[in-house]
This record gives sequence, structure tokens and C-alpha cells, in this order.
Amino acid sequence: MRTTLKNDLFLRALKGESVPRPPVWMMRQAGRYLPEFMEIREKYDFFTRCRTPELASEITIQPIRRYGMDAAILFSDILVVPQAMNIEVQMKPGFGPYLPNPIRKGEDLEKVIVPDVDTSLGYVMQAISMTKEKLQDEIPLIGFAGAPWTLLCYCVEGQGSKTFDKAKGFCFSQPEAAHALLQKITDTTIAYLKAKVAAGVNAVQLFDSWGGLLSRQDYLEFSWPYQQQIITALKDLAPVIVFAKGCWFALEDMADSGASALGVDWTCSPENARKWTGEKITLQGNFDPARLLSPPEEIKKRVTEMIRAFGKDRYIANLGHGILPNIPLDHAKAFIDAVKEYKE
Amino acid sequence: MRTTLKNDLFLRALKGESVPRPPVWMMRQAGRYLPEFMEIREKYDFFTRCRTPELASEITIQPIRRYGMDAAILFSDILVVPQAMNIEVQMKPGFGPYLPNPIRKGEDLEKVIVPDVDTSLGYVMQAISMTKEKLQDEIPLIGFAGAPWTLLCYCVEGQGSKTFDKAKGFCFSQPEAAHALLQKITDTTIAYLKAKVAAGVNAVQLFDSWGGLLSRQDYLEFSWPYQQQIITALKDLAPVIVFAKGCWFALEDMADSGASALGVDWTCSPENARKWTGEKITLQGNFDPARLLSPPEEIKKRVTEMIRAFGKDRYIANLGHGILPNIPLDHAKAFIDAVKEYKE
Repeated sequence: MRTTLKNDLFLRALKGESVPRPPVWMMRQAGRYLPEFMEIREKYDFFTRCRTPELASEITIQPIRRYGMDAAILFSDILVVPQAMNIEVQMKPGFGPYLPNPIRKGEDLEKVIVPDVDTSLGYVMQAISMTKEKLQDEIPLIGFAGAPWTLLCYCVEGQGSKTFDKAKGFCFSQPEAAHALLQKITDTTIAYLKAKVAAGVNAVQLFDSWGGLLSRQDYLEFSWPYQQQIITALKDLAPVIVFAKGCWFALEDMADSGASALGVDWTCSPENARKWTGEKITLQGNFDPARLLSPPEEIKKRVTEMIRAFGKDRYIANLGHGILPNIPLDHAKAFIDAVKEYKE
Repeated sequence: MRTTLKNDLFLRALKGESVPRPPVWMMRQAGRYLPEFMEIREKYDFFTRCRTPELASEITIQPIRRYGMDAAILFSDILVVPQAMNIEVQMKPGFGPYLPNPIRKGEDLEKVIVPDVDTSLGYVMQAISMTKEKLQDEIPLIGFAGAPWTLLCYCVEGQGSKTFDKAKGFCFSQPEAAHALLQKITDTTIAYLKAKVAAGVNAVQLFDSWGGLLSRQDYLEFSWPYQQQIITALKDLAPVIVFAKGCWFALEDMADSGASALGVDWTCSPENARKWTGEKITLQGNFDPARLLSPPEEIKKRVTEMIRAFGKDRYIANLGHGILPNIPLDHAKAFIDAVKEYKE
């Protein structure tokens, strides 16, 4: 670490050190459940928020001010990477991401570039510097990227989907083109995350939101090897967290990768996650975001049970996916407070 | 069995008897990938197809004529049950199911009835009689229903969803109302499936399409007990298959239920499924429907590997979810043929 952080619980948990209580943050903690975020959202469109360092850094620290999590995560989007690779990405209000020229065959790859990230994604690095300044070494800052498979899903499907069948069909009928695209995304992502670390993030997280749509065999062909390349390239620069949603079936494969932590969702019990990862890696998760709609007292009870089940060490308390827009503020607070008040 | 079927491979596999090769059928085998189905679909809207016994029975046997599966499944929809319970269900082309008056609080339950199924769903029983006649005892006929949890998802959310957060929020914030709704759906479903058996189906399948959105703990509270009630009420009348998509985490709980078979999706390996069910129950699945986009030769190779991994006995070859609309006809044929040609 270049800097001495006042609260380094998160980094200590990533190193596997013993801690008085687990660190806590929430995926999508800078998001629509926060009224202060909604104020900014009404004024600026999605990519303006991502591309304006003042806005991205302000949004990043909003939840920290309100709840005092143990880590901040830079506000951005996984789709800034394909955008920088010369694949047009629009964000349609009420619809989600829309890619008007999706990749559907080998020739479509010709226009896809591995960009110079300092130029095309320089705004992210500026947002990191600005956020680090605002955080004043209080807590660590996480940078993130989409896993190559998850980015391929959007690049091929052209929009969100329940099942990403077009993306899967592309991989299964044109595996060579799929692997070529995955490698280009991987090369870009490695450069991107290295630049983020150079700009000051203290850890990086890969989001494989759609890994769980694959069989283990297909995950080990189309997703995991590319994440492994990224981990290998990054792990000596910063701790790497891999959150592969729905990928309980590959936890055993992922435990020996050099990643510092693995994210787990709520369909995988703490007991199974510990068993399959051999107790040797830090785990992060796994509260069902919809369970934050339970009454606050019940949230606190369930959070305490979750920490007991994972154990307080080698553990980062988090949700099993992003927080939902309709979660009441005091319910989010109950989640954070329950971790902070945890006593063995 | 009341009748002697010419091909009883499917029923023998459900009983756990040794068979020369596994039986095969495909979820959603009467569907949009078939040009003969598309012809009917262009002329009649969704609920007309469900409610007209001539159409439903014709659609049911279309795939049998073309491919000769070992079981037919009656063309219908899981949402005919809430419809009969006085919950309005529309099918919007290009959008999917739409329920204009979703259940959102306890009072909304007052209008929900447990109907006389012979009256309100009599058209299904007529479709069964007509289909049985057309099948001429060649192969068995499966009847199906949605699991109560999956039906609650639609009744509360009011439409399809990736995550059914409104439905989950309803359960987590108003558990009493949720359980009351689940019980009404369960009572209706038991009567419905009993009537189907009386009308002539040889087996029934429960589809818990959205069980995998729950943690094991929540699945055991909001989904499984209601399926168990249905199994207990039906199992002495006909074999019951439970397909709970994404519910690998509860296979062990479900293996001792009295169900004759459990469906498995492609994220759960045959080896894990066998291990967790203690080798004591018939398993059904689990080919990734998107893998039918691979070249036919590769499909055949992978199907053979799948059968070897499950073992030919106590096994029903199937997809791990419904067949996709864009599967070429010869790819579907490769899947069916590979099972029929299987030799140890």
C-alpha cells in the first residue's frame, strides 16, 4: 500500500488477517435508493455522470457520508470498456443498455479495437484521483470491471436479457470468433485495471454477472480463463476480488487463482462456499438484496447469522448482488450497522 | 396404469426400472421452433390455443409426429391456474404475460378464489381426452402445473421479470399474506392436477421456474412446502416430476419427497445431482437449450456424454429448460436421435 489508511479493515480481510469485525460495503451502494443520488440523476444523464470526474467522485462518496462503509467503489459502469473498444453503447432510460451494432459474426470484430486506455478512459482515472482526494485516506477505494464473458453478453446480445441466448448461441456456433472477442476484451481490461491501480484504487473487483448462465464446462471455456488472465496480470499490483454471480459450481476452480477474494450470492450457503474454497480464501457476500425489504430488526438478526456462518475472518460482509432501488434508507442502515455492531 | 402403452420407457424410468436406453422428451417441445406450430400461432391467439381442445391437442402431438419423443406434454400454460382463481391474466404479444391487477397486499387476496376446476378449467380436461385419443396409447401424456411460488411471482409482479423483486419483497415484508396466497394456489393446483389425472394424463410435472431466485432458507419457507403438499396429494395417483430450475441447493431436500423424478438444469452437473439425491431418484435433464445451437455432430457427442454421466437408468433425457425458438429443426432431431441411438 502506498498510503496508510485510517480504516484498513477491508484490506486486512483481503489479506486474510484476523480482524475485530468483518468490513462491510454494498454492491451498487452509490445508487438509486439514495435521495442524494437521485438528485444528481435528475440533472445529468448516465454517461455524463460516468464521464464527469466531479460527478462520479461525488456519487462515489455519497453512501460513505451517510452510512460509513468500510470501502468505497468508484461510480462507473462495466460498459465503458466496450464503448472504448469502438462498440457503440447507449443507455436508454427505462430500457437499459442498448448497443445498436451488436457483434454477430467474425467480421464484426474487425472494427473492435484494443484502445489506449489512458486516452479513451482517462476520465475514469481522473475520477479516481478526485475521489481519493475526497476520501482523505479514510477508507480504501475499489475499482471494477466487467468479466470478459459478461461484456461479451452485452456486445453480442445488444441489450439486457434474462438468458442471453444470442450471446450463448454466438459462442456455441462460432467459438473461434467468440474467443477472439473475449481476448480483445481481456487485453483491454488488463490495461484498464492496471491504469486504475496506477491512478490510486486500492483493490479491483471483476463482475461476472452472467457467468451463472453457463454450465461449468462452458464457464471453464468461455469465462474463467479470461478472468484468470486478468487476475494473473493484476494480483501483484492490487488485491483482486472476483464476483461471479450464480457460479457456485466453479468456486473450487476459482479458489486457487491468485484472487484475494471470491464473491458469493445468496443461493450458495456460507457453509458450501467455505467447503468448496477450502477455507483458504476470503469470501464476500451474500445477503439477498430483496431481504432488505424485511423489517430492520429481522435484517439485523439475519446479518448476524450470516456473519456467524461465514466466520468473522477472511470475510467481507456484502449483499449477494446490487442493492435495489426500492430499499428504505433505514433498512440499508440496519444492514451496515449490524455488521459494525457485530461481536463474537 | 389404466392403459397398456406401446412405448412405456418414460413410465418405466419414472418407476426406476432398468431400460435399454433412457426415454427422451424436450421441455416446450410443442413450440415456436416448429413451423407447423407457427402456422397455428399465426391464426389463433395464445389463450385461444390453450382453450380450444382441438388446437391444444393438435399442438401437443405436432412434435411427436416429427421426432417421435417418448412422451407428449399437453400444450397449455401455467397461468391458466391464476386465471381460474379470478386473477386476470393477459398474454401480450412481444411482451409476455401481463396481470393488470397484481396482488400487492393482504386485501387483494379477498377476490382470489379456489375455483371448481372441472368448470373453470374444463377445457384442459377436454384437451386431455382428445389428445389421448390422438395418441392411441403410443406414448404417455404428461400434464403440468406451475409450482405455487412461481405462480405467486407472476401474481405479485404482474409480469415477467429477471429477478421478481416485487414478488420477493411481498413475501419478505408480508409473509402472512404470501403464505395465504401460496395456500390458495396450492389447493387449486391439487384439485387441478387430480382432475388432469382423472382425465387421462399418465404423469404430472411441476415447474418451479423461479425457485432459483431464492436462498435455500427462503425456498424451504416459500416454495418447497407447497410443492411437497402437491406431491403428497398426487403421488398415489400418478408419478410426479418436480423441475425446480436453479434449485441445486435443495436437491437433497427434494429427494425424499415422494416425487418420482427431479428435473435438473445445466448449471448442476450430473455427478452433483446424483450425489445430492443419493442415487435413489430418477433425474431428468439437463442439456443447455442454447447448446442446441452447436453443430449437430457436436450435439450428438455432448448428448452421449450427458447420458453416460447420468447413467442410462433412473434417467430421462431432456433439456435443462425449454427449447428456444431459434433452434434449427435438424438440431432438435440430433438431440432426440442421439438419445434413441444410445448404446452402452
